[in-house]
Amino acid sequence: MPLPLTIGIVLFEGFELLDVFGPCEAYGSSHLDGAFKLVTVAAESGPIASAQGPAAIADYSFNTAPHLDILLVPGGIGTRREVNNPALLEWLRARSTDATIVTSVCTGAALLARAGLLDGLRATTNKRAFAWVASQGPAVNWVKQARWVEDGKFATSSGVSAGIDMALALISRLVSAEVASTVAIAMEYEWHRDPAWDPFAKIHGLV
Amino acid sequence: MPLPLTIGIVLFEGFELLDVFGPCEAYGSSHLDGAFKLVTVAAESGPIASAQGPAAIADYSFNTAPHLDILLVPGGIGTRREVNNPALLEWLRARSTDATIVTSVCTGAALLARAGLLDGLRATTNKRAFAWVASQGPAVNWVKQARWVEDGKFATSSGVSAGIDMALALISRLVSAEVASTVAIAMEYEWHRDPAWDPFAKIHGLV
Repeated sequence: MPLPLTIGIVLFEGFELLDVFGPCEAYGSSHLDGAFKLVTVAAESGPIASAQGPAAIADYSFNTAPHLDILLVPGGIGTRREVNNPALLEWLRARSTDATIVTSVCTGAALLARAGLLDGLRATTNKRAFAWVASQGPAVNWVKQARWVEDGKFATSSGVSAGIDMALALISRLVSAEVASTVAIAMEYEWHRDPAWDPFAKIHGLV
Repeated sequence: MPLPLTIGIVLFEGFELLDVFGPCEAYGSSHLDGAFKLVTVAAESGPIASAQGPAAIADYSFNTAPHLDILLVPGGIGTRREVNNPALLEWLRARSTDATIVTSVCTGAALLARAGLLDGLRATTNKRAFAWVASQGPAVNWVKQARWVEDGKFATSSGVSAGIDMALALISRLVSAEVASTVAIAMEYEWHRDPAWDPFAKIHGLV
């Protein structure tokens, strides 16, 4: 895939901070020499408060966002409201059709599921909120134990910090394994390279 | 220490995203029932661009910030400029005197060191940028191999993701070990509880 690629990070009130900024730390690493351009997108541009309090800036509104090669859909308490937001779901459907890769972190999978985008596909999500997310997409093949799952153009990660491991795996595929390793080391992050690694499924009684 | 505590997160152009939002994810967890109030502070309030691109909002300016019980000083490429910013260094000196706990993540330690706050104390920092940071504080007892170091009211972490482990350790001390464990599990994060764990010191030839 020719680089650079534009990553559209979807924001909404109550997004989970680390779902967004863990992957952004990896994709935005100086060791990638601009392979990824990060843009933040929300229903309206401007400040968007996270679930934890601190606010980030949405660079673009849904209407003004440029072409997005990769989508990053975070979770957070705001997903409980956004699963019932037809404008967001319609935007996700349209932009997922245009995108090459569509990713979710944590309960962000609930939004892709409610948009019908994961029907018939394998996907995973946060392990604590697993039952709720699964109920948003009865036709999805939900994987109970996985750090992340890739199926077609969709890549869905488990809860919060799992998004970092998935981002590094995508960097490995799209750039190189060597560069992904350099990025992980620069983050002083112990990268879980195995998508089957998931001790949290057991903690939450899913397996 | 009576809760809640206000955490002042220092922002400047070119701050490292995960240095800030990894710890904020932990401190802002819903499992803490508001034990920590997160406020963002910069020279001027408003949008501040990170090193990776996405911008966060500074809630307060240096002049308007409320009393801050805990300081969080991140690293990032912007520290190379801010070590020569007398207004920031003076603010850090004044607010560190008032604060109960002062923390840095990654190259944020360079700012505390240049402010003279770490003289005679043990501290650590990012392992890739270790020599540069150490040169900012010749009177600091720099620890080459450590995930984080606590000395007096100061807690300094190694690079980027190390800030998450240090934040969880502080939650363990200020709230309880049980709650800190719950927060780590909710983040689906493999918490490194041992401050001596640091494979990155060896990778960068420091030990």
